[in-house]
Amino acid sequence: MAVATVDAEKQAALAELGQQLRVDAIRAADAAGSGHPTSSMSAADLMAVLLGNHLRYDFTATQNPGNDHLIFSKGHASPLLYAMFAAAGAIADDELLTFRRAGSRLEGHPTPQLPWVDVATGSLGQGLPIGVGLALAGRDLDQLGYRVWVLCGDSELAEGSMWEAFEHAGHARLDNLVAIVDVNRLGQRGPTRHGWDTAAYARRIAAFGWHTIEIDGHDVGEIDRAYTEALGSDRPTAILARTRKGKGVAAVEDKEGAHGKPLPDADEAIRELGGRRAIRVEVNAPDGNAAPPRPDTASLRIPAYEQGSEVATRTAFGEALEALGGVRSDVVALDGEVSDSTRLGYFARSHPERFFQCYIAEQQLVAAAVGMQVRGWVPYVSTFAAFLSRAYDFLRMAAISGASLRVVGSHAGVSIGEDGPSQMGLEDLAFFRALWRSAVLYPCDANQTAHLTAAIADRSGISYLRTTRGDTPVLYGPEETFPIGGSKVLRSSPGDRLTIVAAGITVPEALAAADRLAADGIAARVIDAYSVKPIDAATLHEAAADTGRVLTVEDHWPQGGLGDAVLDAFTQATSMPRVAKLGVLALPGSASPQEQLQHAGIDASAVVDGARALLSE
Amino acid sequence: MAVATVDAEKQAALAELGQQLRVDAIRAADAAGSGHPTSSMSAADLMAVLLGNHLRYDFTATQNPGNDHLIFSKGHASPLLYAMFAAAGAIADDELLTFRRAGSRLEGHPTPQLPWVDVATGSLGQGLPIGVGLALAGRDLDQLGYRVWVLCGDSELAEGSMWEAFEHAGHARLDNLVAIVDVNRLGQRGPTRHGWDTAAYARRIAAFGWHTIEIDGHDVGEIDRAYTEALGSDRPTAILARTRKGKGVAAVEDKEGAHGKPLPDADEAIRELGGRRAIRVEVNAPDGNAAPPRPDTASLRIPAYEQGSEVATRTAFGEALEALGGVRSDVVALDGEVSDSTRLGYFARSHPERFFQCYIAEQQLVAAAVGMQVRGWVPYVSTFAAFLSRAYDFLRMAAISGASLRVVGSHAGVSIGEDGPSQMGLEDLAFFRALWRSAVLYPCDANQTAHLTAAIADRSGISYLRTTRGDTPVLYGPEETFPIGGSKVLRSSPGDRLTIVAAGITVPEALAAADRLAADGIAARVIDAYSVKPIDAATLHEAAADTGRVLTVEDHWPQGGLGDAVLDAFTQATSMPRVAKLGVLALPGSASPQEQLQHAGIDASAVVDGARALLSE
Repeated sequence: MAVATVDAEKQAALAELGQQLRVDAIRAADAAGSGHPTSSMSAADLMAVLLGNHLRYDFTATQNPGNDHLIFSKGHASPLLYAMFAAAGAIADDELLTFRRAGSRLEGHPTPQLPWVDVATGSLGQGLPIGVGLALAGRDLDQLGYRVWVLCGDSELAEGSMWEAFEHAGHARLDNLVAIVDVNRLGQRGPTRHGWDTAAYARRIAAFGWHTIEIDGHDVGEIDRAYTEALGSDRPTAILARTRKGKGVAAVEDKEGAHGKPLPDADEAIRELGGRRAIRVEVNAPDGNAAPPRPDTASLRIPAYEQGSEVATRTAFGEALEALGGVRSDVVALDGEVSDSTRLGYFARSHPERFFQCYIAEQQLVAAAVGMQVRGWVPYVSTFAAFLSRAYDFLRMAAISGASLRVVGSHAGVSIGEDGPSQMGLEDLAFFRALWRSAVLYPCDANQTAHLTAAIADRSGISYLRTTRGDTPVLYGPEETFPIGGSKVLRSSPGDRLTIVAAGITVPEALAAADRLAADGIAARVIDAYSVKPIDAATLHEAAADTGRVLTVEDHWPQGGLGDAVLDAFTQATSMPRVAKLGVLALPGSASPQEQLQHAGIDASAVVDGARALLSE
Repeated sequence: MAVATVDAEKQAALAELGQQLRVDAIRAADAAGSGHPTSSMSAADLMAVLLGNHLRYDFTATQNPGNDHLIFSKGHASPLLYAMFAAAGAIADDELLTFRRAGSRLEGHPTPQLPWVDVATGSLGQGLPIGVGLALAGRDLDQLGYRVWVLCGDSELAEGSMWEAFEHAGHARLDNLVAIVDVNRLGQRGPTRHGWDTAAYARRIAAFGWHTIEIDGHDVGEIDRAYTEALGSDRPTAILARTRKGKGVAAVEDKEGAHGKPLPDADEAIRELGGRRAIRVEVNAPDGNAAPPRPDTASLRIPAYEQGSEVATRTAFGEALEALGGVRSDVVALDGEVSDSTRLGYFARSHPERFFQCYIAEQQLVAAAVGMQVRGWVPYVSTFAAFLSRAYDFLRMAAISGASLRVVGSHAGVSIGEDGPSQMGLEDLAFFRALWRSAVLYPCDANQTAHLTAAIADRSGISYLRTTRGDTPVLYGPEETFPIGGSKVLRSSPGDRLTIVAAGITVPEALAAADRLAADGIAARVIDAYSVKPIDAATLHEAAADTGRVLTVEDHWPQGGLGDAVLDAFTQATSMPRVAKLGVLALPGSASPQEQLQHAGIDASAVVDGARALLSE
């Protein structure tokens, strides 16, 4: 749908709206005593024209599937966003002035506490990659006509993640995506690399297959024509808008040292901008088309594995997800170009229309999933556990967004064998545990893995599933259940003298150790703590009360993983057992999987030694 | 220096060398039973011409400052790298066949266990950004003529970090840097986005200010001319080389499904390639020029702060680093475009020649530091603690490299106040603790910060220093010492009934809590655990033995930080105290710093309540 070019009268009205957005951004920051008004003022005209003439959004029905999506990738321009919400009548002026106060929804950087905000931003370089995910959802999953508008800063174009987004969107020809770049030439501490050289940005972005338009970002006519042109393009469009930071107020306009501060004299600034206005914008309504019906889900037959056989948990994950995709049409899968190894490829072969190849770009991989879950899709993201560290800031922000993601990291720990430390996830339990409201699951066998793969589909927040490369024995029957937050007691007797807590690859080692200890007359309880977070504190407390001594063993550095989770569980207990931890002690090199476990000090022999040492104290 | 174009005889010799490299890569992978021979075979001619005609490297004197640097950004092509070392006489054929065996230096992916390897690679997209750091060191710090050659894969061009590198190097006009891209069109699980469309890559890279050359990567003459042209360019050069994965062996050449596996029939493949050869390459010697003398370091006068005054630890860090830079000319500083906030700007104003602005590109920021420390420079990297999560994979790999980095994260925790969760480092203690051989330091006052800033200069490995935004009271005198691994007992009496362990911003809260408890007749020991890793286990053990109860309090999620570190310390003790943890309990919004501490449940009142609860159990 082409939008007619605005006439002079409408242009004047939009310019006035831009001034109102500036004034209100200044007022909000002034009331707060902090914030980023100058970064808001540069983009005010861009947003005035968008809000007043191109955005299609029903502020009274945020769940309308036809609504456009607007993401402030430069989240620090939140005063501008909130001023837009005020102009649209979504928030009252009183609330605008609660900006940055304790208890206010109007946080320093936008979060989905506000119903019109899809995702939290404020860590730069994330809004555009998330917008790519929304645009993919709109075109390929929802198949709706909504558009995704992303307001970007020029500084954040230095982030590699932006170029992952340009590459993905350009190659996928996402014509429903528009990046609006506010080229105000000033970063936080001084000038950007390219200043007002919008051609430098346009050259780079065009090389990635985008349509680019360079404009004066304070000329509402040019802005309007650019949006119209963007909507008519068969490719994603980047609008490079030359703007002036602090535009309209001489004391701060295009001045260094004015970043992230209220204006020195807000009253004077408001006068300079022509005073307060009371413009109320009638935002265009979205198209009436509804989301395609998602068929009812059939009941899942979780793949079953024969007890006593040997199956890699990565394989069970792949097969379970493929089955899940067959009964739930809202499940989607995203790969970081390793689907042959992670076994995400099984989903791809059965459900290619819901499989997204993100290539080796882990930030875009996670961001695309964040974007898709905004629209209610149920994404599973998978790559090697080690490489998820590449996307940690995106996972951190996804947690702040309250996003529901299922993240599956394969090739965990030293047990991968010969490939060496660069490919070994040895920090993943720690960094996923430290995410707000995360679950961390580390199954030891195929049936457990299949159950947990299905269980996380309906969990909100970030659910991490850690899988193992090599085949491991199937310990549980297919009918067993594995609640998140639970554990399994695999060996138990009244005479247990210590408890061994293991997860994943170390469970079979712990069982072998328990057998050897039993042969020497030492009874050991063995707990499979497949749910590392939340951990099954009750079972651990009982075991500690019974045995008084706890030995943890994990294929991970000793910091932040299973051992720390077990110790933490005892901070809630009425008494502390003696605890000893086994984890990877030295930097691994290349070796066979079993040699690796031995060198790391986490194989059955190490568990036996650790148990004896703990008992001798 | 221009290198003459090779004649036909030399061309034939180089082609033969290429075949030898293929054969030896195949032999190594065959002996190992795993590895990436096909990814090696595609780049064999590129590396043969480099080794035989352009690389200047003294394999017998790896510390020769004039040596070129060669980085395999596509680290999985390690069989090719090791075959090059064999051809240069650096390793014997026997050792080549130890590839991927336990105890061998020839790991699945290269690490600096080998003296000719600068940095560990294997997580894709890291070699080029590190190469940028080396090239910056060569031109701007060492001021030597060495060149930096980086062998890249085509798949890894999807990583945003590569584009951070292209942007940094292009803008800085690093003419001593050459990226050799092995465009073999096949990733791990199938075709890349752009296949053999080298023009697509060249367009993108040229847009970032690089010189680009497209060649047939199996034509030694073309390769040689490209290198010569690259060396004559006044800009960084990217050579886009069309190659065939598995080149030279029909069973695998340009075939999917042959990634990361030994060849199906190595003997047949070697026959197809013309059999084994015994070519020994005389590698060109480096220029004789030596590194510029680094003046002796003067003795440091650490900035001193008056006890009882209030100073932000970020300020003390900035002033201490500025002073350190004045007496040590090997100290360099790298900023992620927030030097006004982190106070790294103080270093910049005094030592601009050793200050590197990396803009908002945290991966390149860390990678540049990794590159510089290869050449013996002492880098300090700084940005907000939250944004260091963006570079976590780079930090992980730097740890595997054994790199010595000092990383300073400012704006830690909820105490930053109104900016909200996106800007708050709440995971950093967890993710830095989980790095191999890291130190994690979290000072509470200015004098402590200044001392620790200086102390980490000579520490090997990754040293993390966490600083606070707001002013905090100066608790210690300027003459106090703060060894890494130490702690400070701030309150102690024979009648102590519990121990409060705090660090950073929570130390003043713990002291205030102890005062309030004392007023109620409850004596509490207070420990400032400024060294979170290694933690001062002895002092904690003593306190636990004396008081039996330990309360930890930290401005961080409860997972993986100070509380877990304290718990871990007791795994080495002969008895476990009762431990309770206070950490950030709910997702913060905007609020003032003191409101944030209160809402998070980590202010003095919360400590008092926590202490009472612990004592009542």
